Order: sequence, then C-alpha cells, then structure tokens
Amino acid sequence: MVKGIICDIGGVLYEGNMPIKGAIEAIAELKKSYKICFATNTTRRAPCTIISKLNKMGFNINENELLTTLAVVKEMLQKRDAKAYGLLTQDASDFFGELLSSGEKVDFVVVGDAAENFNYTRLNRAFRHLQDGAKLIAAAKNRYFKDSDGKLSLDAGPFVKALEYASSLKAEIVGKPSAEFFNLALKSMNLKPQEVVMVGDDIESDIQGAQDAGIRAILVRTGKYKPSDLDKPIYPDEDIASISKLPEILKKF
Amino acid sequence: MVKGIICDIGGVLYEGNMPIKGAIEAIAELKKSYKICFATNTTRRAPCTIISKLNKMGFNINENELLTTLAVVKEMLQKRDAKAYGLLTQDASDFFGELLSSGEKVDFVVVGDAAENFNYTRLNRAFRHLQDGAKLIAAAKNRYFKDSDGKLSLDAGPFVKALEYASSLKAEIVGKPSAEFFNLALKSMNLKPQEVVMVGDDIESDIQGAQDAGIRAILVRTGKYKPSDLDKPIYPDEDIASISKLPEILKKF
Repeated sequence: MVKGIICDIGGVLYEGNMPIKGAIEAIAELKKSYKICFATNTTRRAPCTIISKLNKMGFNINENELLTTLAVVKEMLQKRDAKAYGLLTQDASDFFGELLSSGEKVDFVVVGDAAENFNYTRLNRAFRHLQDGAKLIAAAKNRYFKDSDGKLSLDAGPFVKALEYASSLKAEIVGKPSAEFFNLALKSMNLKPQEVVMVGDDIESDIQGAQDAGIRAILVRTGKYKPSDLDKPIYPDEDIASISKLPEILKKF
Repeated sequence: MVKGIICDIGGVLYEGNMPIKGAIEAIAELKKSYKICFATNTTRRAPCTIISKLNKMGFNINENELLTTLAVVKEMLQKRDAKAYGLLTQDASDFFGELLSSGEKVDFVVVGDAAENFNYTRLNRAFRHLQDGAKLIAAAKNRYFKDSDGKLSLDAGPFVKALEYASSLKAEIVGKPSAEFFNLALKSMNLKPQEVVMVGDDIESDIQGAQDAGIRAILVRTGKYKPSDLDKPIYPDEDIASISKLPEILKKF
C-alpha cells in the first residue's frame, strides 16, 4: 500500500515556465491521501527560488516538502567545515554563500547545472583545483533537461564527466540516482521503500535510481521523456501520459 | 634499424612560447640521418600558424613534414562533401572555411581544442546538432596540455567526453592515438612501423597510441609529463629527460 510519493519537479510538474496540464489539480488531490517529498536534481536555482516559482504557477508547496541536492551538498560542506569552488549559477552560489571560496586552496569542487556559467575559464579553474587535491562533488549528473524552447539542453552531467575525464577522478554524486538521496527522501516522510513510489521523467536518475533503492518508479511521458527511453534496459513499474494520471494509477499500486 | 621519427610538437619541441633547451639543435642533427614527421593533436592553430610559430622559434620545418589532425579532418569533410558545426578556435575555423556551417542542419560536429570558445551556448548547440543526427568527430581527445603558465589546462578531450555523455554517442577520434593517424604518418615517410620511433610527452595519445600501431615509443619528461604517468600500465620503450637526448638514445635502437 502506497503511503508516500517522491515527486520529481522539472518536466513532471512544469515544462519551461508553464505547469503541465492537470498537474496543479493532481498534486492538490494527492496531498489529501499521501505524504509527498518533492525531490529535484535541479541545481540552477536555490530551494527558495524553486518554491517561489512553483507557488507562483499555482502549486501549494512548503519548503519542508522540498528536497534539493543543493541543500544536501550545503549541509555536507557545513558538517565537514569545508570550502568549495563552485561551478554554479549565481542564484545557487548565493545559496552557498561563504562556503564557496575563490582562494587558491579548496577542499571540494561542487558542480551543479551552471548553465552560462560553464565556460572554459571556470572549468579550467575547477580542473586545476582537482589537480591540487580537491575532491569532486556532483550535485547531479543528469545528461540533459527539457528547456523552455521545448528542446533538450545540456545539464550538469556532461560537465561532471568532462572534469572526471580530465582529472581521472570519480565524482561523488549527491542527487538522484544516488541511494543516499532516495534514503533522505524516505527519511523526510518517515516511510519505508515499499510504502513509496517515485514519479519522474528521467529514466536513469528517477526510475533506475529509485528502483535501485527498492522503490517502485513511475515514468511520466512529459519533460525530457523520449520514446527511446523505453528501449533501454530499465523498466519503469508503470508509465503514464503525465502526472495528471497519477491519482488514478496509484489505486492499482 | 630506425629510419624515421614521428615527433610530437607541443611539450616536446617547446613549452609555452619557448623552445625546450637543446631541441632546435637536436632536430637539426636528427634531420641529417632520419626522416621526420611532426605529428600533432594541437588543434588550436591552423597548420600554417604552427609552422610559422616553430620557425620563428628557430626550428626549420617545412609544411610537408607536418601532420596535424585539423588537416586530416578537413580532407575527410572535403571527400565526403559534408558540412560541419565546429567547436574550434577562430584560427582553426578560418582553416576550415566554408566547410563549417552555422545553419540548422549539419552532417558532423567537429571538436578541436576550442579554448575560450568552449562555452555553454556553443556546447549546447553542438549537442542539439547531435540530437538532430549529426555525427561526432573528435580532432583529438587529449585530456590536458601544459599551458604557458606552466600548469596543466583542459584540452579538447573533456569536452568530447561531455558531448559523448550527453548524446550517448561515441566520437570518431581522428588524431593520436588512432591507428589511422599513425598510419598516415608512416605513409608520409614511406616507412614501416618497425622502421620508426614515436617521441612524445603524452603517455596515452603518443606512447600507447604508437605502440598499438606497432611503433616503438619514447616518452620525454617535458611538457605534460608527470612522474605518475609511469605508474600506469603503459610502458614506453624508453624515457628520456628531453628531446635533446634523442640523437644519442636512437643509436641504441
């Protein structure tokens, strides 16, 4: 019996700047019967910016229902009393504040989806920090996302891969599909894997990641979904046209 | 018996803008006894710019002694009557001229070491061409090179890797370590693998690549060389302090 939902955000609740048809109503209905943890690898925006964007669209989501990889990385750096060089957007950098250093020596290089802030100078600086002993943290490793013009655009993953290749290091991945991230989502709802379903548009980060953590996973055919996603050796427990179908399909689970 | 040398350029003949000590004299001496093919994965500069830089430093090298991956890629595009989107420096783009297209549809994405021209907008554009069916050509896949400030800097390889990861495609690598490139070098001297030695500073592209093509390979401890290169499971046939030691060591081969 399903008691909770881990719900991806970009591509599931909205595309570009528009809510997906029926998503606002579906979430309002689901909230009556289930706990929901909104769990996103989106790293372009700070958590409060994400909440504000969603609520302006018409959703009604509280900050304590949101789990973002940026928040997890921030807590990790605080616990370790560490300094990092960030490949991040300005909004994400502001969220990290003094944990980021522009100095010569840092403990970590943190890569989020920096968008236009990915340029040669910054990537080379990150590479040199890695050469000097910094560890590589990937807030996420997604390959691409569905951009506001309806086409796919590069996410953080390719740039993480670039730095891994240059430095011969392996990044620690904080967001989905890491099992730790799914465990944090479960913990936030105080539920067990078998009591929860994951809903997402990313066949690897959302579907494979959840299943690897023992959580059933439903793929939505919105956002970055492509028919060829279903050719891969990853089998969602269900695939649905959009989140608007989730209340109905969950009755079967 | 050695009759010819395939000689890498950056990090072997010069570092930054200065010839390596003894390199000019060594090349002049070697030219008396051996055929030399100067073979480089340097893609920031057009072939004529490379020749002009070398000869200004005091080397005496003809254009027909030079084999660069850019020239090989250009010939390939011409033969196939194809258009490409280039992630390249301005100098390299000028070399390709009308073979590059800024239009909607291209047959290939060509990645060289674009330096500051690697930015999010261009990389994303390349990614979208790949999504639309363009094939990915890597003029080289080197991880890094020794920059003019004495530190390592990102080469084309990490960006090729980024695009491969984003698109789930595999790039065709034109330069070293591809066997085809070494075969072109042999052909230019009309020599067999066992008559030739490769000299380079890149343990993978130069040493491993040459050995895979049946050519003995000598690592110079200049340029991007790091002591840890010798920890890897790649064994140069010889390693020498710099190219200045090559005339002497070749007597042993």
